[in-house]
Amino acid sequence: HDGDYEGENVEPNDRKLLCEEWASYGVFYKYQPIDLVRKYFGEKIGLYFAWLGVYTQMLIPASIVGIIVFLYGCATVDENIPSMEMCDQRNNITMCPLCDRTCSYWKMSSACATARASHLFDNPATVFFSVFMALWAATFMEHWKRKQMRLNYRWDLTGFEEEEDHPRAEYEAKVLEKSLRKEHKHKETDKEKLTWKDRFPAYLTNFVGIIFMVSLTFAIVFGVIIYRISTAAALAISSTPSGRSSVRVTVTATAVIINLVVIIILDEVYGCIARWLTQIEVPKTDKNFEERLIFKAFLLKFVNAYTPIFYVAFFKGRFVGRPGDYVYIFHSFRMEECAPGGCLMELCIQLSIIMLGKQLIQNNLFEIGIPKMKKFIRYMKIKRRRSLDHEEHMKKKQRYEVDYNLEPFAGLTPEYMEMIIQFGFVTLFVASFPLAPLFALLNNIIEIRLDAKKFVTELRRPVAVRAKDIGIWYNILRGIGKLAVIINAFVISFTSDFIPRLVYLYMYSENGTMHGFVNHTLSSFNVSDFQAGTAPNDPMDLGYEVQICRYKDYREPPWSENKYDISKDFWAVLAARLAFVIVFQNLVMFMSEFVDWIIPDIPKDISQQIHKEKVLMVEVFMREEQGKLQMLETWKDKDKKKGENCNNHSPKLPRSHSGSLSSCHSYPLDI
Amino acid sequence: HDGDYEGENVEPNDRKLLCEEWASYGVFYKYQPIDLVRKYFGEKIGLYFAWLGVYTQMLIPASIVGIIVFLYGCATVDENIPSMEMCDQRNNITMCPLCDRTCSYWKMSSACATARASHLFDNPATVFFSVFMALWAATFMEHWKRKQMRLNYRWDLTGFEEEEDHPRAEYEAKVLEKSLRKEHKHKETDKEKLTWKDRFPAYLTNFVGIIFMVSLTFAIVFGVIIYRISTAAALAISSTPSGRSSVRVTVTATAVIINLVVIIILDEVYGCIARWLTQIEVPKTDKNFEERLIFKAFLLKFVNAYTPIFYVAFFKGRFVGRPGDYVYIFHSFRMEECAPGGCLMELCIQLSIIMLGKQLIQNNLFEIGIPKMKKFIRYMKIKRRRSLDHEEHMKKKQRYEVDYNLEPFAGLTPEYMEMIIQFGFVTLFVASFPLAPLFALLNNIIEIRLDAKKFVTELRRPVAVRAKDIGIWYNILRGIGKLAVIINAFVISFTSDFIPRLVYLYMYSENGTMHGFVNHTLSSFNVSDFQAGTAPNDPMDLGYEVQICRYKDYREPPWSENKYDISKDFWAVLAARLAFVIVFQNLVMFMSEFVDWIIPDIPKDISQQIHKEKVLMVEVFMREEQGKLQMLETWKDKDKKKGENCNNHSPKLPRSHSGSLSSCHSYPLDI
Repeated sequence: HDGDYEGENVEPNDRKLLCEEWASYGVFYKYQPIDLVRKYFGEKIGLYFAWLGVYTQMLIPASIVGIIVFLYGCATVDENIPSMEMCDQRNNITMCPLCDRTCSYWKMSSACATARASHLFDNPATVFFSVFMALWAATFMEHWKRKQMRLNYRWDLTGFEEEEDHPRAEYEAKVLEKSLRKEHKHKETDKEKLTWKDRFPAYLTNFVGIIFMVSLTFAIVFGVIIYRISTAAALAISSTPSGRSSVRVTVTATAVIINLVVIIILDEVYGCIARWLTQIEVPKTDKNFEERLIFKAFLLKFVNAYTPIFYVAFFKGRFVGRPGDYVYIFHSFRMEECAPGGCLMELCIQLSIIMLGKQLIQNNLFEIGIPKMKKFIRYMKIKRRRSLDHEEHMKKKQRYEVDYNLEPFAGLTPEYMEMIIQFGFVTLFVASFPLAPLFALLNNIIEIRLDAKKFVTELRRPVAVRAKDIGIWYNILRGIGKLAVIINAFVISFTSDFIPRLVYLYMYSENGTMHGFVNHTLSSFNVSDFQAGTAPNDPMDLGYEVQICRYKDYREPPWSENKYDISKDFWAVLAARLAFVIVFQNLVMFMSEFVDWIIPDIPKDISQQIHKEKVLMVEVFMREEQGKLQMLETWKDKDKKKGENCNNHSPKLPRSHSGSLSSCHSYPLDI
Repeated sequence: HDGDYEGENVEPNDRKLLCEEWASYGVFYKYQPIDLVRKYFGEKIGLYFAWLGVYTQMLIPASIVGIIVFLYGCATVDENIPSMEMCDQRNNITMCPLCDRTCSYWKMSSACATARASHLFDNPATVFFSVFMALWAATFMEHWKRKQMRLNYRWDLTGFEEEEDHPRAEYEAKVLEKSLRKEHKHKETDKEKLTWKDRFPAYLTNFVGIIFMVSLTFAIVFGVIIYRISTAAALAISSTPSGRSSVRVTVTATAVIINLVVIIILDEVYGCIARWLTQIEVPKTDKNFEERLIFKAFLLKFVNAYTPIFYVAFFKGRFVGRPGDYVYIFHSFRMEECAPGGCLMELCIQLSIIMLGKQLIQNNLFEIGIPKMKKFIRYMKIKRRRSLDHEEHMKKKQRYEVDYNLEPFAGLTPEYMEMIIQFGFVTLFVASFPLAPLFALLNNIIEIRLDAKKFVTELRRPVAVRAKDIGIWYNILRGIGKLAVIINAFVISFTSDFIPRLVYLYMYSENGTMHGFVNHTLSSFNVSDFQAGTAPNDPMDLGYEVQICRYKDYREPPWSENKYDISKDFWAVLAARLAFVIVFQNLVMFMSEFVDWIIPDIPKDISQQIHKEKVLMVEVFMREEQGKLQMLETWKDKDKKKGENCNNHSPKLPRSHSGSLSSCHSYPLDI
């Protein structure tokens, strides 16, 4: 680093300036001084912060709309007929127990609160919002492309392309030893390179390793499910009837927290493993290495972060069977059902806890705590060493000596990775959690300054690297954007009750209102059909004898000839859901394509500017040459007549020359 | 044109060479001499023929696979249980009449032939084939990108970008008159340009015009449908029972031919209209003009060519209602049903006739006949004129005078358009007609030489235009490729019986075979439920009293409590169909993306070459400058010592100079 950054008495330098104008929370409302950042840290880091800035900026409208959608939910919760029907005591429907033996029958109205809460995220506005967010993602990508182009132009990178960088040392070594081996076998050794055959074992290891990691993640998630089921049962037995209601809450909360902790730990582990896997792969160039590493790390962390959410969104409570014929795992644990309010609520809780927890913990612990600690330790070390030799203590320390205490720069990958995963939270499941953009925004406003602080004060000054774009990250972002469309389509149509409501409204409702919807979604079950040992222990829990209990599914009633079969309504609703997915996906994809098409990648002014400059350069250049030609002609004439006024022309030459040289120096940049 | 192309005694020239090596059917198996074409006709036409070549080349594997799929269909037609069941006389199912009154009950087994035929195109292999074709399209696009890059490099266009061309005269005029109007109103006139406000009427006209054209197309198609229905009824009345079977064939054939004729006529009309619409729009530049024109023309011609096919594929026979409660248009015409063999067969017929007919007629009539005729007429004119003045007749005519007889060059748009529409036939509905690629291939092998002949012998030599790529056509191709995926998904799942068969196999079939499938797809209808006047006139036609007739739909039987309602099976099959669409679309899209990703756009060798050359150029350049610098230094020294050996250095100068000049001349190309 050049110069100190704190204290009044230091002479103003870039670092101080950055520290004041950029790396402090006081200026969070200002744009970042990107050019200064670039000047001080180089293009690559400059681009990162520019991207982060654009992303944060784009999050503002998204979060505003998100808040509006949320407020709409709050406003309409009272005229939402289904939740009203669930809540009112008059039609107190008796529901079938949610687990075997220990759980008893329960009243529909006891799920009132969750029903009302789930309406906040399960209303028509969320459909609009997920469409909006899909288009938002497309706009964001376009906007960033343009911004990048602008920066490229401003930073004079328009013509710059990465020269293929040199093979990494490990690669060279590998090649060398291979060629040696060859020589040993008395073969002629021409230009050696690692063939697919040499790489095969490494690839295999990679493949196996990744498969293993992924399955490990799945196993852990599954373990958590088992934990949830078993503890739920255990608690239900032990607890008093009054406390039994709180069981679900406690279990869910603990389970999610376990998930969270596991995710955060595995994140670190997977980071190391990905690095190791990439090293044994021996990629040729550094760029190559980075890309492969990023890809692996992303894959692992993505799976790690989203598996539990996917489970809750699409699998939980779907394959539970029906009363009297439940699905069991290990013949002992009955598959868990969603809360009475529906799975969407749980998904929402899961999302918010994981997202917030991940952000807070990773930000505070890993981005502030650990560096500070490391710095402190290193500082202590040096202190101790210094206490031994005193003469060194006398002289004023050099800047680089002071900065040596700082943490070495570990690359931008973690920073990007964090943001990309967050981008996933913002886009992938936005249909179920409209406030995600808001949380992301709040996080990023801090994140920018935090990273800034880290780069200015906590880390050694990184070597400036030139870069034209954010590389593979852009592709990953686009991939997530595409994925978001289909996932949101499925969340809306399968996780939320949006489609069943529509179907009821247009196919079954006689008076065109939602009255009777709740009743329509429930099937009846005759208590006498319970298998042995699955009936609740105290059937009289509700205070009266129960013949028929209801459960949330589309099945034939007990009095139909083929009772408990899947009913026609089920297929109708399923067809509607799938149709919605198709329509939604294609419509949104088309709109995104359209956005992509109407917004030109290169801002008009920039492209014109570039074009003009090229033309200008050519002209200047030709004039130069012309000038020289003429000049030399004159020289010749002069020689012909052997005048002694030869040399009074000499002063001209250097000028015109420097000119021509500069023009041709500037020219490699502008190719 | 330079030189003559026929006769032995002419000296060899490019035209003659082209005519022999390129524009003759004898060499259809050879690659085209693209470089020569480019040399003679310029880059733009060169690129067209290169593209046509790549496309034709890529059609070879596609058509081979298509043939294999077709043969598979032929081979398996005999162990195809459903068609066997339809054919065997033992279970002779009585079907409900396909039209009111005149049509009578008919035997299932009478549809045997069509059932067997439709198996040729409706078997599992077609599913595979449509996946294959989607990937094929993606590969084709990538392959062309690479080829284009190669040609750009070979033709030294790598650095070349279109300089923005000058405004068109019409535009200037419009601007001028506008500014005059302004002046008239005593306003200051700075740099005028057409704003959105000035353009509005033109845009409006465009919009209205296109809407009108499209609706016209729809109207015509609808008219043909009415024609088909009414004539079918009429013929059915008039004809003898024996001839009644041939009614459908005749009607269908005539209808399709009408469609074809209409399409071909409208194609020409729409071409003119699109041009007119674009002219009144007054686009700024020629490029602009061309793009807008192409877009409009494509839109209109696409709708024109595919509307009848879409109708047959997705609407025909879907909204016919049920026996006893049919859907009527104009209260008199009952909606037409598909042939007993299913709609896929008709779709196939429609496709093949339109595709082949379009190609043959357009090729022969419009591309050979008309030009030859025009040429002949012009020739006659000149002959007559010449007969008047004899002295001119004496002298040998100049080349350009002879070529003046030829047709003027009308641009490449029609050529491209034809090919793009064909590409649509090859990709969009390939699931229902695996032989399309083959026909396209055969057509193109002729097409290339035909166009070549036309360019060499029939047309005046066009002005050579530089171009880097095929422009908007590429985007249109990509659009069609994307569209093809979803359309094929729908054809497979809704037009063909693929999904119902699967559903039957896995949900209903007791012994895991297809036995009983036909019976399962048919619903029963009690004859007594016919509405008045819709029952067939001669119920005894089959020779026995009919109580229950069957029809192809999933509805409740007459003996169920809610008879003729849509049954559970219907919804189950529908859900399966929609699910298939989702899976198919996303899977294929993902695979296409993958193909797109693994094939680099720029061939490795080319990119390396380009990079090397750039580096080299810079070096050469610097050396030049160095050399000049030194030389001028020496000059100065020489002057200093005023030696008379000044001028024996002069010979050096021009050489080094020409060098530097050449280098800086070549340099604009390589920017």
